[in-house]
Amino acid sequence: MRIVRFMDKENNKLTGIVTEDGIEEISGDIFGEWEKTGEILAESEVTLISPLEPNQVIGIGANYVATEKDRPEKPQDLPVFFFKPTSSVIGPGVEIRIPESVGEVKFESELAVVIGKETYQVDEDKVLDSIFGYTIANDITAPQYFHKDGHWTLGKSFDTFTPLGPVIETELDLAKVQVEAYQNGIKKQDSSTDLMIISITQMISYLSSIMTLKPGDVILTGSPVGAEFLKPGDKIECRIMEIGSLVNPVIKGVK
Amino acid sequence: MRIVRFMDKENNKLTGIVTEDGIEEISGDIFGEWEKTGEILAESEVTLISPLEPNQVIGIGANYVATEKDRPEKPQDLPVFFFKPTSSVIGPGVEIRIPESVGEVKFESELAVVIGKETYQVDEDKVLDSIFGYTIANDITAPQYFHKDGHWTLGKSFDTFTPLGPVIETELDLAKVQVEAYQNGIKKQDSSTDLMIISITQMISYLSSIMTLKPGDVILTGSPVGAEFLKPGDKIECRIMEIGSLVNPVIKGVK
Repeated sequence: MRIVRFMDKENNKLTGIVTEDGIEEISGDIFGEWEKTGEILAESEVTLISPLEPNQVIGIGANYVATEKDRPEKPQDLPVFFFKPTSSVIGPGVEIRIPESVGEVKFESELAVVIGKETYQVDEDKVLDSIFGYTIANDITAPQYFHKDGHWTLGKSFDTFTPLGPVIETELDLAKVQVEAYQNGIKKQDSSTDLMIISITQMISYLSSIMTLKPGDVILTGSPVGAEFLKPGDKIECRIMEIGSLVNPVIKGVK
Repeated sequence: MRIVRFMDKENNKLTGIVTEDGIEEISGDIFGEWEKTGEILAESEVTLISPLEPNQVIGIGANYVATEKDRPEKPQDLPVFFFKPTSSVIGPGVEIRIPESVGEVKFESELAVVIGKETYQVDEDKVLDSIFGYTIANDITAPQYFHKDGHWTLGKSFDTFTPLGPVIETELDLAKVQVEAYQNGIKKQDSSTDLMIISITQMISYLSSIMTLKPGDVILTGSPVGAEFLKPGDKIECRIMEIGSLVNPVIKGVK
């Protein structure tokens, strides 16, 4: 099932399912009870927005090797996790804004996991039961705002720094997903999720050993090698074939 | 005005205002429209819970000097900010749980600011308009889970690691607030907010230059010198006279 959110002509935020007939509007809670309203819209009629308003956004750092032979013999003791504010989330097509004080920013194409139910102390082999679906994230970063003592918070927190979308795909075979990025049409990232250091089931099981994950939590599962810098005027596309393309233009300045 | 949340006898989560007559129940959105329901409860009838479910929890690191003469001549280029998951929030009286893998945890008594409206790019002299009120936080930390490269996320993210309460006080003269902590009745922290390195108006103005703050965002404004370690069996009280006392017992193990 492919879930989208969109604005109608009156700027209402609505939720729908993409079917062969178009976008079938639904009402209710995607993580609980919902039903079709009977309304069907053509994709051309609507403007897609981020497919959910996350409860929280959690990321994992440095989670891909370039090739299998680069894989560390044993993973480091503690993985690097970080939070991004929900205020940084934007939808497909919306401008990534680079503040004057920053100059250029890094893009990172990532497979994002949407948690569907309260999850605490869950073993790896049960993790898939907690996953509602998958979307694409672009983890935009201003390393200029990384603290010299290692804190990434500010550099990842600017408004517009977490493009998300275009859809939540609830069915995805994690065995072999390819994560790609295209900067102005030129391929920069293209890795299989096989090259993750900590797998999706490992990272969610580990996180759940620390904290209760909640419906609507979004976990950015790391970015392949090849991430580069964006400047105003660029266009960045993050692509996972089974989910779609998340395209955002880059402009200078804040709202 | 002093706002609390509490459980009634049927375990419903309700909101109220503390008055001379007792707790006057209100319904609606504390950041928007609300009204009194007419129900008045005795404080002895109810169990207080955290005075809000934060939208996000943002902290600032290392923000107090021990004495005025320790104040750095100029503040560092970038302050240290971090996020704590909302799943770590507990109310007054609830146990702080120390997982087996941790052993002991640090307490930090803090003045916490509750943001009341969307706030972006706000000058220092306008910051007070964005503040809804103030409460007390205990920023519990397991430094054993700090990443060697400086990332604090995991060590601050365990369930029960953010006691909050007991009330939101909407009127507080920031000129001179004293932040205290008592471990098993013995005073460990006792500093005026005068000893903050980055003031509350400075930190909120700065944060708002990066990201849009939202109603219900809670900002932990740093902890005075004197924070120590807690072990199971301890009782920790964070106190700010004008707001109240936030008392939590410490136990071993997870839910």
